[in-house]
Amino acid sequence: MTEANPLIVFTPSGKRGRFPMGTPVLQAARALGVDIDSVCGGRAICGRCQINIGEGEFAKHGITSTQSHVSPVSKVEERFDRIRGLAAGRRLSCQTQILGDLVIDVPPELQVHKQVVRKEADTRAIELDPCTRLCFIEVEEPDMHKPSSDLERVYRALKDQWNIENVSCDLAIIADLQKILRKGEWKITAAVFSRAPGGGNRLVAIWPGFHDRAFGIAIDVGSTTIAAHLTNLSTGEVAASAGLMNPQIRFGEDLMSRVSYVMMNPGGEKEMTAVIREALNTLTQQVVAEAGIALTDVLEIVLVGNPVMHHLFLGIDPVELGGAPFALATGLPVTVPARELDLKLNPGAWCYVLPCIAGHVGADTAGVVLSEAPHEQDEIMLAVDVGTNAEIVLGSKARLLACSSPTGPAFEGAQISCGQRAAPGAIERIRIDPVTLEPRYRVIGSELWSDEPGFEEAVSATGVTGICGSGIIEVIAEMYLAGVINQDGLVDGSLAAISPRIEPYKRTFNYLIRDGEPRIQITQNDVRAIQLAKAALYAGVRLLMDKLNIEEIGKIRLAGAFGSHIDVKYAMILGLIPDCDLTHVQSAGNAAGTGARIALLNSKARDEIEAVVRRIEKIETAVEPKFQQHFVEAMAFPHKTAPSPHLSKVVMLPPRKDIVIGDGNDDDGGGRRRRRRG
Amino acid sequence: MTEANPLIVFTPSGKRGRFPMGTPVLQAARALGVDIDSVCGGRAICGRCQINIGEGEFAKHGITSTQSHVSPVSKVEERFDRIRGLAAGRRLSCQTQILGDLVIDVPPELQVHKQVVRKEADTRAIELDPCTRLCFIEVEEPDMHKPSSDLERVYRALKDQWNIENVSCDLAIIADLQKILRKGEWKITAAVFSRAPGGGNRLVAIWPGFHDRAFGIAIDVGSTTIAAHLTNLSTGEVAASAGLMNPQIRFGEDLMSRVSYVMMNPGGEKEMTAVIREALNTLTQQVVAEAGIALTDVLEIVLVGNPVMHHLFLGIDPVELGGAPFALATGLPVTVPARELDLKLNPGAWCYVLPCIAGHVGADTAGVVLSEAPHEQDEIMLAVDVGTNAEIVLGSKARLLACSSPTGPAFEGAQISCGQRAAPGAIERIRIDPVTLEPRYRVIGSELWSDEPGFEEAVSATGVTGICGSGIIEVIAEMYLAGVINQDGLVDGSLAAISPRIEPYKRTFNYLIRDGEPRIQITQNDVRAIQLAKAALYAGVRLLMDKLNIEEIGKIRLAGAFGSHIDVKYAMILGLIPDCDLTHVQSAGNAAGTGARIALLNSKARDEIEAVVRRIEKIETAVEPKFQQHFVEAMAFPHKTAPSPHLSKVVMLPPRKDIVIGDGNDDDGGGRRRRRRG
Repeated sequence: MTEANPLIVFTPSGKRGRFPMGTPVLQAARALGVDIDSVCGGRAICGRCQINIGEGEFAKHGITSTQSHVSPVSKVEERFDRIRGLAAGRRLSCQTQILGDLVIDVPPELQVHKQVVRKEADTRAIELDPCTRLCFIEVEEPDMHKPSSDLERVYRALKDQWNIENVSCDLAIIADLQKILRKGEWKITAAVFSRAPGGGNRLVAIWPGFHDRAFGIAIDVGSTTIAAHLTNLSTGEVAASAGLMNPQIRFGEDLMSRVSYVMMNPGGEKEMTAVIREALNTLTQQVVAEAGIALTDVLEIVLVGNPVMHHLFLGIDPVELGGAPFALATGLPVTVPARELDLKLNPGAWCYVLPCIAGHVGADTAGVVLSEAPHEQDEIMLAVDVGTNAEIVLGSKARLLACSSPTGPAFEGAQISCGQRAAPGAIERIRIDPVTLEPRYRVIGSELWSDEPGFEEAVSATGVTGICGSGIIEVIAEMYLAGVINQDGLVDGSLAAISPRIEPYKRTFNYLIRDGEPRIQITQNDVRAIQLAKAALYAGVRLLMDKLNIEEIGKIRLAGAFGSHIDVKYAMILGLIPDCDLTHVQSAGNAAGTGARIALLNSKARDEIEAVVRRIEKIETAVEPKFQQHFVEAMAFPHKTAPSPHLSKVVMLPPRKDIVIGDGNDDDGGGRRRRRRG
Repeated sequence: MTEANPLIVFTPSGKRGRFPMGTPVLQAARALGVDIDSVCGGRAICGRCQINIGEGEFAKHGITSTQSHVSPVSKVEERFDRIRGLAAGRRLSCQTQILGDLVIDVPPELQVHKQVVRKEADTRAIELDPCTRLCFIEVEEPDMHKPSSDLERVYRALKDQWNIENVSCDLAIIADLQKILRKGEWKITAAVFSRAPGGGNRLVAIWPGFHDRAFGIAIDVGSTTIAAHLTNLSTGEVAASAGLMNPQIRFGEDLMSRVSYVMMNPGGEKEMTAVIREALNTLTQQVVAEAGIALTDVLEIVLVGNPVMHHLFLGIDPVELGGAPFALATGLPVTVPARELDLKLNPGAWCYVLPCIAGHVGADTAGVVLSEAPHEQDEIMLAVDVGTNAEIVLGSKARLLACSSPTGPAFEGAQISCGQRAAPGAIERIRIDPVTLEPRYRVIGSELWSDEPGFEEAVSATGVTGICGSGIIEVIAEMYLAGVINQDGLVDGSLAAISPRIEPYKRTFNYLIRDGEPRIQITQNDVRAIQLAKAALYAGVRLLMDKLNIEEIGKIRLAGAFGSHIDVKYAMILGLIPDCDLTHVQSAGNAAGTGARIALLNSKARDEIEAVVRRIEKIETAVEPKFQQHFVEAMAFPHKTAPSPHLSKVVMLPPRKDIVIGDGNDDDGGGRRRRRRG
């Protein structure tokens, strides 16, 4: 590389160097460490190494770059263009030789390690760096003068053509190898997995000739639903998604009833393992069919789930999780051949399961951490995933704590008299007029409020069948704001004089939302159930705040189905979550599933989450005396210990029973009127 | 460690050091790197750490050692003695504290890395250093104040108590872990395998409490017979051996007919794989039953075999080995879970298959190399394993070559008119009187020669049914020495005038050994078959000698069943093997199986053979023009190119047809008489 050699500048990286005349651009890029993708290894087959040649004077770089500074379009490029198409101006860098100074632009979609944009706002991008890569290789033919086995020559090709060493493989690959090599006329595509236990690289699949489809599936195994995302390992794009009810529900609605099933039915864990694996295969077949690919194109699967689900899909009896000391069989990350989980993908596919954090804080929470990255925050972040237990992570770069709090299933609509799962017919939004105590509501499946014309027709198909989890939060908060319940959660029976919706029931009072079949009402017991649940959640968070010795939280992320649907304002009114600027409280959607997708697409993310989980301080609420104290204190609305300066900007909380209405920007479609009682 | 501390000298190693009063002897030994075994990690359970306390003045070491310089026998030692027995004077070093200067003797049978003595004379010992070791560990109980999973605490115990890190394990282990930990009351024995692909340690089996049985099986899968040796991984002792006919024989007697079977019957390789694996399981069950252990105590299996057997037991179609360029699917060492070969051992057991050298030089030859160690010799060693092909290794420390020579099945008795496998009734020894041309012979199953009284009664059960491989070598050589055949292998029809045993047959002559049913005779075609076989063998050896540019061979090792049974003198008369001092020609017995046993017992032996096989120069006789030339030249008796100076000490070869009888020290029971013709 003398001064006489042409100067090459790659954008956007800015990497530059001088190369002899005639050097292929791809080779120059590799020498400089510029990320240009290639599956075929420079043979004009895959088309991943496309570039644009800069034209004109580039003052910044001190050179003039023109099309005449590269070799003309070659026969193989013409052939590629004819068969697979090449965008105007694009060249294959493997076929393009340097004949003068050049500015070369690498299109973003063709960069290795490119950023995968996530749909959620305000989230970090995923860097594409999968554990499984495809490598097209040309293998030497056997030569009796230099005898060597076919596999040895495959390994040599991987080393010489892709710099991949220390490779091992399954017997199944060896058994197929000779036929595939000969079918591909000594050209094959090899899939290499870089994270097998122990280390080294693993040859997991081979195809004759050139093959460029490599997919992975990220699955969040929830107690109620299972969600799968088929993802292209080369582009990071989600090719298909599907969800399914967890078929284990027939063994018990919630986690503890499933653990009980195992306790009562020895061997029952095997049944549950079988049905969950069957469900994973069903989902896999759905997404594969939707994307129009072959099952054998699926080379990896990443799973997350709460500890009980984690144990069950791995085939581990979860009974130890049913009682103190809640010991996990393993909380370590699990990397196993997918076939060991009876998963029908490519026979060589590997499965990665994110680490669990503690006995009640599972791989799903690890997924939330990977997605929301509290460990990268300068300010304190609270991430909460609410299910039967609330899994809580609190901290920042400096320190991270996690615990689980026994909220029970009230937030999911269970243990609530009219509660139900989020499904068409369930009330999900509600407003109560503080003067008349009349409710207006919306149900899942219709955009209309109950006081709008056409509502009854719109819901006639399903009826109004109950209240879902997010609806329950709203109705309790609205009852509180309307003065139907007081700070202690007691339904004010004196209001029966004002409204017939306040109905006596045994020695307490109910609030009737809708008369009919079924009759939808909130009982005193319902209020108590929500009080217990929200107190547990708050107490868990408060306990971690004590450990960190903080009073303020910078950001809150609410993960999971419940977290995605509740109105955070109401969550704060009820005191589910501690005080925080409402603009910094966000739903994280299915953050656990997103974490699984990150681990699928980025090898280093696995190192990252494994390291983070090791340093997370695990707090067991059951052995923390302060948890009980926080719990008791958090029963009231809003809790007595920490009035919300942030929330008062939105709604002024009643000093006694006065209510100041907010700015009306919420989705109830109108301002609120002030009502004064007393 | 000050001068004031007692001085401890360990014998036989001579390692010495000073330790504070009260230090346990085992701890001192470990600090000094003295090899004392222990499975229980110093808990007085396993009894492997026994020592003898020296008594008296040890001038050599400058100290006086007495029983009073150690702590008295402790309660736990008394208990061990009561339950398991402790030889007089023996102490458990883990329980014995240093109280003064000591000379401590480590009994040879209790040393780690001890030498395992092999039955064969003049062979190197095996150093005991297995890949799988048992480790008794005490695991911390779960503690809600410091939540961690059971597996994490197992890994921590392995690190803290055994210094074993980077451990992974099968899902099956994780699924069993919680029950076994609780059953063992947090004490378990773990089997750790150190050579899983990729690296790291693999937890392969766990037992509640203390367990000290760990076995491995070494198996040589021959085309005709399969031999298994169950070996104690802690002592190196062979606990049981068993052999079985290879059931694949029903698909074809020899290798090529089995490969042909696959070519003619697509999928036939799957049948052959199934029957061979079934046979391996049958053998395994036999040896395990004989030794009175459980199948789950078998933690490793090592397999060797020729390339076709190697491919078939691994489940690889062997058709490519049936024709040029004879490419192996893999020649690399294979390390796979034994269950992937359908082998029913401990479910966590691993299988190791030695590397193959070339398309016709298999893992069995690698076993021969490991056993006979030509790569460690100063002088040139020839190791030959004769079967349907002769696998030939030649060389020394400096350089090693290997080839395979197509001897055909004549040496195994096939393609010989009266040939048969070595079995009762087969002629195995023969002498021909050079004057009368009368034969005397012995058959397998009787110690009597045919001219001794009682011979006919002794063989009446089986009859005399044919001639086995080693018998054929002798009869052809004796025919030559008696002048029945000339140097060109032609049966001398003129002798029909002297003896009725020379019978005309078509246009040639037969030599009749025994009249009766069956009639046992040697035809001209039989002589030709042996000439072709021996010429092929010799030509292969000669080719390698050319490559090494040598004329002399220092040592010869004849491996395999044929090599073990032939009289090397006759082999040299016929020119099967090149000139060599007869005292340096030895049978190596089942050297391939011995090699498998070495690889089973010594982890470094696997590195060794893998490295040696890589540097062996593979010669393909099919593409070497000189091979044909040597082959043609080697057809005559004795070959014309290299008369034997060594052999002439034993028998003088006929300058024309004169025979000078040797010194009569061979086992034919008497001197020979001289006969002159012409």
